[in-house]
Amino acid sequence: MSGCPFLGRKLFTSKPSQAEEEDESQKGINKATKGGIVYGEYLQLDKVLNAQVLQSQQKGDKIHDEHLFIVTHQAYELWFKQILWELDSVRDLFIKKHVRDERNMLKVVSRIHRITMIFKLLVEQFAVLETMTALDFFDFREYLSPASGFQSLQFRLLEAKIGVADHLRVPYNRRHYRDNFHGQESETLLSSEQEPTLLQLVEKWLERTPGLENDGFNFWGKLQANIEEGLKMEKHKLEKMEDSEVKEDLLAELNKQTEIFTALFDPKRHEHLLSKGELRLSYKALQGALMINFYREEPRFQVPFQLLTALMEIDTLMTKWRYNHVCMVHRMIGSKAGTGGSSGYHYLRSTVSDRYKVFVDLFNLTKFLVPRSWVPKLNPTHLAFQTDELCKNRYVSERRGIEEKQ
Amino acid sequence: MSGCPFLGRKLFTSKPSQAEEEDESQKGINKATKGGIVYGEYLQLDKVLNAQVLQSQQKGDKIHDEHLFIVTHQAYELWFKQILWELDSVRDLFIKKHVRDERNMLKVVSRIHRITMIFKLLVEQFAVLETMTALDFFDFREYLSPASGFQSLQFRLLEAKIGVADHLRVPYNRRHYRDNFHGQESETLLSSEQEPTLLQLVEKWLERTPGLENDGFNFWGKLQANIEEGLKMEKHKLEKMEDSEVKEDLLAELNKQTEIFTALFDPKRHEHLLSKGELRLSYKALQGALMINFYREEPRFQVPFQLLTALMEIDTLMTKWRYNHVCMVHRMIGSKAGTGGSSGYHYLRSTVSDRYKVFVDLFNLTKFLVPRSWVPKLNPTHLAFQTDELCKNRYVSERRGIEEKQ
Amino acid sequence: MSGCPFLGRKLFTSKPSQAEEEDESQKGINKATKGGIVYGEYLQLDKVLNAQVLQSQQKGDKIHDEHLFIVTHQAYELWFKQILWELDSVRDLFIKKHVRDERNMLKVVSRIHRITMIFKLLVEQFAVLETMTALDFFDFREYLSPASGFQSLQFRLLEAKIGVADHLRVPYNRRHYRDNFHGQESETLLSSEQEPTLLQLVEKWLERTPGLENDGFNFWGKLQANIEEGLKMEKHKLEKMEDSEVKEDLLAELNKQTEIFTALFDPKRHEHLLSKGELRLSYKALQGALMINFYREEPRFQVPFQLLTALMEIDTLMTKWRYNHVCMVHRMIGSKAGTGGSSGYHYLRSTVSDRYKVFVDLFNLTKFLVPRSWVPKLNPTHLAFQTDELCKNRYVSERRGIEEKQ
Amino acid sequence: MSGCPFLGRKLFTSKPSQAEEEDESQKGINKATKGGIVYGEYLQLDKVLNAQVLQSQQKGDKIHDEHLFIVTHQAYELWFKQILWELDSVRDLFIKKHVRDERNMLKVVSRIHRITMIFKLLVEQFAVLETMTALDFFDFREYLSPASGFQSLQFRLLEAKIGVADHLRVPYNRRHYRDNFHGQESETLLSSEQEPTLLQLVEKWLERTPGLENDGFNFWGKLQANIEEGLKMEKHKLEKMEDSEVKEDLLAELNKQTEIFTALFDPKRHEHLLSKGELRLSYKALQGALMINFYREEPRFQVPFQLLTALMEIDTLMTKWRYNHVCMVHRMIGSKAGTGGSSGYHYLRSTVSDRYKVFVDLFNLTKFLVPRSWVPKLNPTHLAFQTDELCKNRYVSERRGIEEKQ
Repeated sequence: MSGCPFLGRKLFTSKPSQAEEEDESQKGINKATKGGIVYGEYLQLDKVLNAQVLQSQQKGDKIHDEHLFIVTHQAYELWFKQILWELDSVRDLFIKKHVRDERNMLKVVSRIHRITMIFKLLVEQFAVLETMTALDFFDFREYLSPASGFQSLQFRLLEAKIGVADHLRVPYNRRHYRDNFHGQESETLLSSEQEPTLLQLVEKWLERTPGLENDGFNFWGKLQANIEEGLKMEKHKLEKMEDSEVKEDLLAELNKQTEIFTALFDPKRHEHLLSKGELRLSYKALQGALMINFYREEPRFQVPFQLLTALMEIDTLMTKWRYNHVCMVHRMIGSKAGTGGSSGYHYLRSTVSDRYKVFVDLFNLTKFLVPRSWVPKLNPTHLAFQTDELCKNRYVSERRGIEEKQ
Repeated sequence: MSGCPFLGRKLFTSKPSQAEEEDESQKGINKATKGGIVYGEYLQLDKVLNAQVLQSQQKGDKIHDEHLFIVTHQAYELWFKQILWELDSVRDLFIKKHVRDERNMLKVVSRIHRITMIFKLLVEQFAVLETMTALDFFDFREYLSPASGFQSLQFRLLEAKIGVADHLRVPYNRRHYRDNFHGQESETLLSSEQEPTLLQLVEKWLERTPGLENDGFNFWGKLQANIEEGLKMEKHKLEKMEDSEVKEDLLAELNKQTEIFTALFDPKRHEHLLSKGELRLSYKALQGALMINFYREEPRFQVPFQLLTALMEIDTLMTKWRYNHVCMVHRMIGSKAGTGGSSGYHYLRSTVSDRYKVFVDLFNLTKFLVPRSWVPKLNPTHLAFQTDELCKNRYVSERRGIEEKQ
Repeated sequence: MSGCPFLGRKLFTSKPSQAEEEDESQKGINKATKGGIVYGEYLQLDKVLNAQVLQSQQKGDKIHDEHLFIVTHQAYELWFKQILWELDSVRDLFIKKHVRDERNMLKVVSRIHRITMIFKLLVEQFAVLETMTALDFFDFREYLSPASGFQSLQFRLLEAKIGVADHLRVPYNRRHYRDNFHGQESETLLSSEQEPTLLQLVEKWLERTPGLENDGFNFWGKLQANIEEGLKMEKHKLEKMEDSEVKEDLLAELNKQTEIFTALFDPKRHEHLLSKGELRLSYKALQGALMINFYREEPRFQVPFQLLTALMEIDTLMTKWRYNHVCMVHRMIGSKAGTGGSSGYHYLRSTVSDRYKVFVDLFNLTKFLVPRSWVPKLNPTHLAFQTDELCKNRYVSERRGIEEKQ
Repeated sequence: MSGCPFLGRKLFTSKPSQAEEEDESQKGINKATKGGIVYGEYLQLDKVLNAQVLQSQQKGDKIHDEHLFIVTHQAYELWFKQILWELDSVRDLFIKKHVRDERNMLKVVSRIHRITMIFKLLVEQFAVLETMTALDFFDFREYLSPASGFQSLQFRLLEAKIGVADHLRVPYNRRHYRDNFHGQESETLLSSEQEPTLLQLVEKWLERTPGLENDGFNFWGKLQANIEEGLKMEKHKLEKMEDSEVKEDLLAELNKQTEIFTALFDPKRHEHLLSKGELRLSYKALQGALMINFYREEPRFQVPFQLLTALMEIDTLMTKWRYNHVCMVHRMIGSKAGTGGSSGYHYLRSTVSDRYKVFVDLFNLTKFLVPRSWVPKLNPTHLAFQTDELCKNRYVSERRGIEEKQ
């Protein structure tokens, strides 16, 4: 095992490293001494490694493979805890610290990226469980009832905190998913649903994208003008072509594009689709996302662009996780058509759906790509924050205070 | 999470599924009822998910990334437990059941294969820890002292049970590795070293390879005769070539080959190399391994051949795990030349060595490959088990039924 | 690159290693000399590395990322060629060599396993292409028209040769998939559809499973008797329980199980489902597959069991490949609702379906698992091949001939 | 295969998408029509898929597994070409565009990241080749001579262009590595060695890190002052402790730290280590790298910090690739002690060394980490570019607009 990182010894005892979250309470003293904590205690291995009780052994015969089943699920839960740890910290950075949006972006992107790396591992992890055959599983399956992976509180929290919409969920045995939880767990879920989701926080942040101000760069107004002009010229050009099948195709295609953009610039249509659950981001946030895409090479937007990419990655990986889960279940219990009860396979399959993609609007931005020459020219000074002079001065001094704290 | 497999309900309550190990004690009754165990209880998540205590929070400021550090190491330990579970079961199958060698081979190979799949996951897992930068680690490293990954009992057990030789280990700070453990842990280690290792059990099993009997097929005698004849004819042929650089090269090469095979057929030289630790398998076991390689397509040897391959895979993956560990440590603490104490990086690097490869003799079998025409011809009836006569006769007649076909 | 394996030099020039396929033409002489072939020639790198022509450069501006797009697709096609190579060899082993089924099983399983390893790599490979953003792709997408991945001949051959059923395919723009190919390619496809598929060959092999003979072990007859008896006793026992909700549930469950098994033992129902495309394997083959599952620990069935597992693995991995493909497309071009033409995303999504699972019947065997005590007891002598005495003698002598050829 | 991305059709024919490199020559017209290029032509599959000629078939018997050997190596070479494509473009961005350093950083980081993703795939790819056993390889190895992976031109170019130092290479059979190449290949190698390496370009870029100017922020001067002060206070504090073993340990540790920092601030020592090849980066570049590490959360340094991380990742992955290669070779040909010639295994093992790590200085920065309170305070205005005054002033005022916010 590991642990080399452990091997180092750091000297500086008087001034402990400042916490990442820059708390004043940081003047604690490192009490680690030669008699300090050792590996097993530190990791509380007495708890972690004594939590594998085989139901088959308790209730009948010990079935060898049940141990794998338990360990795999515990590993999943450990990593879910880590994902929640990162997710909560990111939401916290968005909630409390938006004054310092820019300085926090590296942290935000790194932590979201870490979540994607964990999900990649979790997808890989199925390969281990898949060394168990359906026959091996059959030997202890009966002992598990009525335990069900559906009862994983952490996974539901994860979905809720990212922003899987309550009303878009597939019902489970015709009941609301929260009905499967009771007491403290049910309350934890309910309260998590009342906190701002990652989706909502990202939405607010996108709405603050510099350059969207009507009285400033006015990105949206300029973009609309450019696109309308572009489409008009395109149409003009096509109409001058000689009649042919190609011409007809191109005109038909142009009409479709025109419709798409007419819809894009119609705020009411956006509201309508939002209310139906077909869109998830506000109109303003969508504009911010598109702006970051178009100007992603501006220094100001490089890390924000990475964030948008990482958010789509999370969606994709969660959906891959779901799909790999479905595949594993198919191997383990088949499609089980007709055995009644909730068909595990079919229920799970239905959750591998775009309804569960939280950042689906970011995927669909590709519909609105246009030639670069149609994108409004940007002067970097346009990327200042939306703020009045007073506020700007406040920022500078606030900023100074932060820097000098170190 | 997951657990779809959980979703199924099995009917047959009266006759519980027979245990894998086919024990008569299997008549227990499944007590799972509608009021039975639920997911969180089953996995003892109260233990597993409440075992993350940040030392940075206890002793100074909460450092965000310490949580990742803890969870990653706990996940490693969980999987080490699973590997030990499989390893113990395989050793047990070899110890108690060798009369039924053949029927157990699928289980043995599957479980060894599962260990390789777990190691692959553990190699992947570094990618998650590597999302932590050296700077992030620096912020809480001081709090961990003197905990060290070197103190992982399970990893030492793992090494010992597979068969890493005590005297081939790199010392740690000039002390025996066991000196880092105390009390119960030290005893556990010591007693594990006294059990038969996987290497020893595989060795015994290889020594039983049917076909090795001097008074039977006499593989070794026949092989020696064929090779000597082959080399002689080869020499004869080369000597008739016209003088040229090519001829000289070929003769030089032939001499080297001849030396290799002369050494191979010298039992005393084998003993000598064994005593020096340059070889790990007995002479007879080596013969068995070579035999399985040459006749791997015989139905009797197909699964044994898979086993030899899987054992090399374990060696390779453990060494890859070590190497990835070294790389991660290099990122985290650099080479730390001159900081004194045990240099984590340099110590770990020294363990990425063939001295730690348990099945190194299997890798080196390639030295002894010969043209297929030199391999002694085999009659399938030669492949009967070495067991008491009664049993053998019964087996042979049964076997004949199986082998003789169409 | 690599190539250490290249470094070795083998001596034995007179008797070249016998080909895997044991052809007499093997007495060729190794002409490799010091002046022989070098790395670049051997790999024909002049072809492979000069096949990257960017359409964006030909038709407009060089777009950097098009190179990645080309290389990724070429790597896919290289690996498809390798998969076809393995697939053809496995089919060939099944077609020509069934007299020696048993000796070929290691080869068959190893090659099928290799295909699964390649598919795993191909799934990983999407991660590289996904480093290209939708915006980067947009910059050269127009130059590719009308090229389409749908036109990959090798992928269609792959599907056809494994056994994706023509009539189960999703139409492409309302046309038969073969209509997208012309000339030689169309003929190649058509003729591949007329060869026996892997599915069909596996089916024939399963039908030959020893133990199925009515006048021998009569597995099917015995199994039916045991299950009927088991269900009867189960019912009897349940009826004696006191009335309760639990009792009702169990009875309902028992009825469902009884229906499942009644259907299983009804050959006409099987024919009916076959004709509808809901089943793919013949009745006899299904029996063989179930038998191999139940007796997988018999030495005779260990490798066959591995084969069935590996076949399901291929199905699973192809479907994962399809799903990862869909995810990648969603990132690249969004859902493109309304753009008309064939919606790439929606078409592809429809192919991630059980209709494309060739060995779906093997997944559904889990429906027919029963307690081990219901499985007919087997005497290993039952596993002889179906053959009369004459034939058996012929086999033995034939066998001898094969062995002695070496 | 794939290709959904192909499926889309883009409309805008008049104004072709602007090239990534923003060239005026971009007014080309998309000539793709209904009669345009199809998949197989686009990918030049006639070349790529007709480049697999088995030497075993040419010179003796067809050995099935040689096809895998060829395809695997071709896939490696394809990906090496892609890595060179990215590497050249990154070097080009550094060479020509340094005035716009900041705007290019996203591209640079993305492309370096892409290289790491490709290397990850290449490490995975060994798993496919490893499905070939040593025995399978033995059957065709003789036909390959004298081809050797050592002859891969692209891999040597890759090493040279990244910056593997000529004089740090392990000799190959006591000869300079370039002696293995002839004619055009040798010239290509030689000329690539005369171009600026990635290492050198990164070094120049690091030397331009804003904040290093003596007459500006003067990072290095301030850092030295802070560290000296910090160490003095630390010593003062320790001396006041009561005598104890702990005190002695801490003092010894402090002395070591003091030595490390004394060396760090001694430019002559740096020159000395550079000349010996123990360091690779100039003194100024090292300062820049340390600065980026300390201030990585400054918006200006977030992406540069990602770049440093990605460069270490490349080093790590190349070394992992080498190590996996060694493992594969060990499986294929064993250690081959005594067979003479260049022992493939031992030669390759010697290249898995820190001598081949190009960015090793970045790993060793961890030696110089200090408590955050010792890091000089930074005012964001210090981070302006070093460029001609006019440009700087323009930038600063623009920049101010960007930085100063809310």
